[in-house]
Amino acid sequence: MPRFDDSEKKRAEQEGRLLAKGLNASPGAAYGKAIFDADRAEELGKAGTPVVLVRPETSPDDVHGMLVAKGILTARGGATSHAAVVARGLGLPCVAGCEGIRVNEEQHLFRVVGSDMVIKEGDDISIDGATGEVFAGIIKTMDADFNKETDLKKLLNWADGFRKLGVWANADYPRDAQRAITFGAEGIGLCRTEHMFMEQERLPIVQKMILAKTKAEREAALDQLLPFQQSDFKGIFEAMVDPDSNEGYPVVIRLIDPPLHEFLPSYEELLVDVTRLETQGGHEAELAEKRQLLEAVGSMREMNPMLGLRGCRLGLLFPEINVMQTRAILGAAAELEKAGKKLHPKIMIPLVGHVNELKEVRRQLESAAAEIAREAGRPIDYKFGTMIELPRAALTADQIAPVADFFSFGTNDLTQTTFGYSRDDAEGKFLLKYVEGLDVPGMKDKVKILPLNPFQTLDRDGVGQLVAMAVEKGRKANPDIELGICGEHGGDPDSIEFCNQIGLDYVSCSPFRVPVARLAAAQAALTRSEKDR
Amino acid sequence: MPRFDDSEKKRAEQEGRLLAKGLNASPGAAYGKAIFDADRAEELGKAGTPVVLVRPETSPDDVHGMLVAKGILTARGGATSHAAVVARGLGLPCVAGCEGIRVNEEQHLFRVVGSDMVIKEGDDISIDGATGEVFAGIIKTMDADFNKETDLKKLLNWADGFRKLGVWANADYPRDAQRAITFGAEGIGLCRTEHMFMEQERLPIVQKMILAKTKAEREAALDQLLPFQQSDFKGIFEAMVDPDSNEGYPVVIRLIDPPLHEFLPSYEELLVDVTRLETQGGHEAELAEKRQLLEAVGSMREMNPMLGLRGCRLGLLFPEINVMQTRAILGAAAELEKAGKKLHPKIMIPLVGHVNELKEVRRQLESAAAEIAREAGRPIDYKFGTMIELPRAALTADQIAPVADFFSFGTNDLTQTTFGYSRDDAEGKFLLKYVEGLDVPGMKDKVKILPLNPFQTLDRDGVGQLVAMAVEKGRKANPDIELGICGEHGGDPDSIEFCNQIGLDYVSCSPFRVPVARLAAAQAALTRSEKDR
Repeated sequence: MPRFDDSEKKRAEQEGRLLAKGLNASPGAAYGKAIFDADRAEELGKAGTPVVLVRPETSPDDVHGMLVAKGILTARGGATSHAAVVARGLGLPCVAGCEGIRVNEEQHLFRVVGSDMVIKEGDDISIDGATGEVFAGIIKTMDADFNKETDLKKLLNWADGFRKLGVWANADYPRDAQRAITFGAEGIGLCRTEHMFMEQERLPIVQKMILAKTKAEREAALDQLLPFQQSDFKGIFEAMVDPDSNEGYPVVIRLIDPPLHEFLPSYEELLVDVTRLETQGGHEAELAEKRQLLEAVGSMREMNPMLGLRGCRLGLLFPEINVMQTRAILGAAAELEKAGKKLHPKIMIPLVGHVNELKEVRRQLESAAAEIAREAGRPIDYKFGTMIELPRAALTADQIAPVADFFSFGTNDLTQTTFGYSRDDAEGKFLLKYVEGLDVPGMKDKVKILPLNPFQTLDRDGVGQLVAMAVEKGRKANPDIELGICGEHGGDPDSIEFCNQIGLDYVSCSPFRVPVARLAAAQAALTRSEKDR
Repeated sequence: MPRFDDSEKKRAEQEGRLLAKGLNASPGAAYGKAIFDADRAEELGKAGTPVVLVRPETSPDDVHGMLVAKGILTARGGATSHAAVVARGLGLPCVAGCEGIRVNEEQHLFRVVGSDMVIKEGDDISIDGATGEVFAGIIKTMDADFNKETDLKKLLNWADGFRKLGVWANADYPRDAQRAITFGAEGIGLCRTEHMFMEQERLPIVQKMILAKTKAEREAALDQLLPFQQSDFKGIFEAMVDPDSNEGYPVVIRLIDPPLHEFLPSYEELLVDVTRLETQGGHEAELAEKRQLLEAVGSMREMNPMLGLRGCRLGLLFPEINVMQTRAILGAAAELEKAGKKLHPKIMIPLVGHVNELKEVRRQLESAAAEIAREAGRPIDYKFGTMIELPRAALTADQIAPVADFFSFGTNDLTQTTFGYSRDDAEGKFLLKYVEGLDVPGMKDKVKILPLNPFQTLDRDGVGQLVAMAVEKGRKANPDIELGICGEHGGDPDSIEFCNQIGLDYVSCSPFRVPVARLAAAQAALTRSEKDR
């Protein structure tokens, strides 16, 4: 992962080129020309010009520009915003929610708040996704080439001898999966399928699927998506097959999770378009079309989408989406098995809060899986499991465990609901102040409310209590259950120590965090065996 | 509380006058002329015409119309929407989220989906807030006059001899408090202060307070609000003083809770205004003003306001709001104490998730309280407590209890985060289907996912587990702590049985539910003593 040359960065600071600081949304450093729209970024990026895509915030319409950019800078949105999530998925440096800049899309520039500095389209900028810093001009980066760092490799191999925890990686694309293997991952603990839906050529089909008025329309769109998904999964599975043994590492694939309106155009933009067309008069056909889309998007809007129609709730209302994804997963596995490879796909059903949700989804998908096996003419080895990412799932883990082959603790979402913090809103509005300390009238020192950011380091007293409870209840009800963690805490040493302590089977983290996780897992095991002595 | 005459209602059904069914957002029945804007509703209502206010959804701008209406009907919004919450506060029948009607604001009419029926301004309609039904024409209502129902009174007095649980009521206005006393309530378990902020003459000051750029500006607005709040609290306290003993029943007042943008104009409406003005050209001054407001409101918007900057987080960022409210509460108490009454105000700090939040708010407010007592020249008896409405608060109740004089379980919010269900979104989108049963391909019968709506009847396995845990941990850490419940479950017999079982001190519910709660509490105590025998 590239990082800035230290002396160059120090010089930039001394020269007053530090413009602003946002959220460190996806690690790594990048420089390039500031470009304010995705089409132009794609054009320049494909021609070989390094580009940093700068947007107020990103949406699915920007993904084609993000794919070729060296880095992403947004003025709005938190660590789970579209920009942050996609950037992490692509292993791309990203500074998000940079409130110190004001992006003017029409004029293709941004202003720095509290100064008269302006960065115009084509000006060079540099961003540090590990610190959230944004600089004017170029700061050279150094590539950390893992293969060459043989001393570290030796250390890690030595550490692997001690650790009890498996170290897996979160990867959505074959190239992430390959990177994870290079870094020593022993499986994929979380493959999110929705990013596949966001790619430019697929998005129109996804939108057709979402806006379908009948089940037949929806199924037609899903039929079009199936081959895309199947080839995606095949790519990931292939990347995870050990060339010596022809045996695949485990791959956990999560069924569709986000609210469907995340795949649709922005309600606000449509509202502006419709109002403009109405005020101007004329353009009848365009107005009618936009109005219809506005109504459709409007009917899907939610006050609190994080707590709305998403996760397994989607699959229960629209079973055909889950069935298509299961077909794609098991179809890809069957293809590779025919070619002599041995695979172990694990299908993960997200956001279960009541055991009946899992029971019913599993019943539907097992019948789909049986059909696929019949078609393929061979049994397919697969497992069904669920994410434990709602307090109620942890509290009733004893009811859920008998229906699940594995639990994966989704500690990002679990932290959100346990604390009642929307990650997108909380970090910018109050959470960072809670951690840094508040200015309080009459107090000389800042008053710290939280010792740590619970989205970075697992909150043991609250969220950790739920996880430990679910481990105990889950294992008691189903001794064979496999237990892992796939929230971002899976790459944080302190949280890894906790995972070791409560006896999880593995942690899963960003590919880039795999070496850190291997070391932390070894350290945790050594500390524990010291204590036990 | 008025309800429809049964035979009249049956006749209306037979005549095909049932137009649609929405959410039963606030109980009671009403008929009147359908009126589509608040100004017109106020005008007619004040002139004595019965009015049902019909809106797509309501906002603070509609409250003056709601105050004189006989009932409220909205096409959008759930059981915690503005319309529902205000209507319950006013004891006004309300049908919300009635998706079977399409309101056309400009033409002052609504259409019934799937038919060609149209209700125009001035047409008579009738709504049943207990069932969610909307009828064309007038259905006469019968007023249930509690004072006359002496048999029921006798039964309730008899029942009171058996129950262990106190029965308190949720009341925001003096008239609700009086009604609660009439029905036999022994205290106010929840007085929400934000409704006071919504009233028409105060809202502009509240908005000035929220949009203030400096602390001085904010404090100036708060100084204007203080006398309003103080006279509100005085009214509630007076209503809760026993005329014989001059002693006040306990009153729990919750400090400001909702996200501040709930008090501001709608972002979408401002966006439409700005776009229209921009497209038309001219109107420079108006455009500049609207743009500024749009930016201000935009900067306060949140992706998931339920999980955002609200509750005690507000008071930690803007301590002067809490201080003003504490001054108003204790100032009102001091006034009445001077007049020889004995009061017991309890100040409740909402949405605590970490003990440090409560510690710091309490520290600030105790120092404000000491100042008020000095000014009043007499000690004031008050208590500080918190709502337990986040999973983390329940999980760490042992840490929080030593800092709290009382816990009040806010089971509405606790249900939201424990299940990960936004009440506004979930009920319409999937929750009611979960309870009624889903249509599943290949299954003859509907598949039920949830046995009951957890917002109506407390979910014992999940939410109840957290409440029981908090009771145990809380009492252990602070044996003197007082424990009650103020979520809507406080009026549900099955939930009351659970509250009795885990040993709460009281339940608090809508004034209208008090008689039901008294009976249910007696029954729970009797059943339990049977079992113990």
